[in-house]
Amino acid sequence: MISQYNFTVASTDGTPVFSSQAYRLYAWLLSSLSPSHADALHAQGEHPISQFLRYDPSAKTTVWSVSLLNEMAHDLFAPILDTAETVSLHHGTILLQTKTHSAVKDAHDLILESRRRDVSRTTILFHSPASFKQAKRYVIFPQERLIVQSLINQWNRFVPEYPLDDPDAFQMLADGLRISDYALRSTGFRLKETVIPGFTGRLTIRSLLSPPLAELWSTLLSWAEYSGIGIKTTLGMGGVSIDTQQQDAAGG
Amino acid sequence: MISQYNFTVASTDGTPVFSSQAYRLYAWLLSSLSPSHADALHAQGEHPISQFLRYDPSAKTTVWSVSLLNEMAHDLFAPILDTAETVSLHHGTILLQTKTHSAVKDAHDLILESRRRDVSRTTILFHSPASFKQAKRYVIFPQERLIVQSLINQWNRFVPEYPLDDPDAFQMLADGLRISDYALRSTGFRLKETVIPGFTGRLTIRSLLSPPLAELWSTLLSWAEYSGIGIKTTLGMGGVSIDTQQQDAAGG
Repeated sequence: MISQYNFTVASTDGTPVFSSQAYRLYAWLLSSLSPSHADALHAQGEHPISQFLRYDPSAKTTVWSVSLLNEMAHDLFAPILDTAETVSLHHGTILLQTKTHSAVKDAHDLILESRRRDVSRTTILFHSPASFKQAKRYVIFPQERLIVQSLINQWNRFVPEYPLDDPDAFQMLADGLRISDYALRSTGFRLKETVIPGFTGRLTIRSLLSPPLAELWSTLLSWAEYSGIGIKTTLGMGGVSIDTQQQDAAGG
Repeated sequence: MISQYNFTVASTDGTPVFSSQAYRLYAWLLSSLSPSHADALHAQGEHPISQFLRYDPSAKTTVWSVSLLNEMAHDLFAPILDTAETVSLHHGTILLQTKTHSAVKDAHDLILESRRRDVSRTTILFHSPASFKQAKRYVIFPQERLIVQSLINQWNRFVPEYPLDDPDAFQMLADGLRISDYALRSTGFRLKETVIPGFTGRLTIRSLLSPPLAELWSTLLSWAEYSGIGIKTTLGMGGVSIDTQQQDAAGG
């Protein structure tokens, strides 16, 4: 089960809401759980939620996106997100204004839907700072392999009913993708006392994949809009949107 | 012997001068050689010259930088650059306007001068599209190792009197540098019928090097402003400038 809430948010005192504050919004969400629900979440280890803040310059609004990635996440967080109107943080109050909620779908629906994508050329917009880790170091430039690996790892964690566990397929998938264009800049994500190095911007990936692998890539891209890409997507990093050409129904 | 000419340039018909036209300016330079000089250059294989066009948005002018990298380059090209005022190309005429010429220095002077740099944090501005090649593929994201390798290769080609041929030093140099910040975008460099993929923008490299290696890095950075970075610097790619803190004489 997968769905996404989008709230336009504003601070009551008019100060900007920065992408790093997503961490505080997540802490508020956790604090809103009943003790038994909080225990259940902690027992799970991985948190089945991905969320981030992005500023939309055309609308001059800040949007908080919260994706619930499995049934447990819906059970725990949907009741809070359905009813909350304000969030009290240390430094002030955040208003949760206009709310939209995408339909709850299961992974099979996501797979079917993603077949409408033409993935020959895909643009990924990184709205909140994204980063990868490799050999214990942060990687602040994207790589095809790191993007694919991150999406597959998250998929396997939260969609165990359709496991992606074929190393050869992963290898062919990564080999058949090429970052062809980009406009990116490094930026830090403040997390308590530290700053995680990362990047924001856009990149375009061309696919040279055979049809079955192109379908897998398409599914991972649909998933990316919920799961995010890279590390610490639960805390507000790696929030993305995907821009592909949608084929019309007759052509798909 | 190393020096650099900088011309502000303009087309006689007022159309913009694009960075890819550096290739045509280079072709014009070659065509201006006497037959015997042209033969001498072709015999050398590698061309001891690096040049590129950059638009300077603050001055609203386009600058053509031409670096002469050894004595042969000075013998062949300085007489042309000292006297030329216009360049006739297929599509029109380019005016060579204001000209500056940095003093001719030898590699030893460059090494001494570079000791004044504080290389703990260096910003490299990539003015014309830069690219690398690795395993026969273009690499459109910079890497510390590729930058260092490119500079050492060019240095060894044109400054054989101070060879840099210690693989361990190269390894330690690359390991002690970190790209910490960047703002880059991909862009193509048009070369006849093809487009070479590359990037422009800025990046900042932090040095964790011991003092002797920091001196070597400093020398390579000074060299970079003449040689450029990456592939096809003779044809107009990989033109850079370097921004470091200059220590005052007492502190250096």
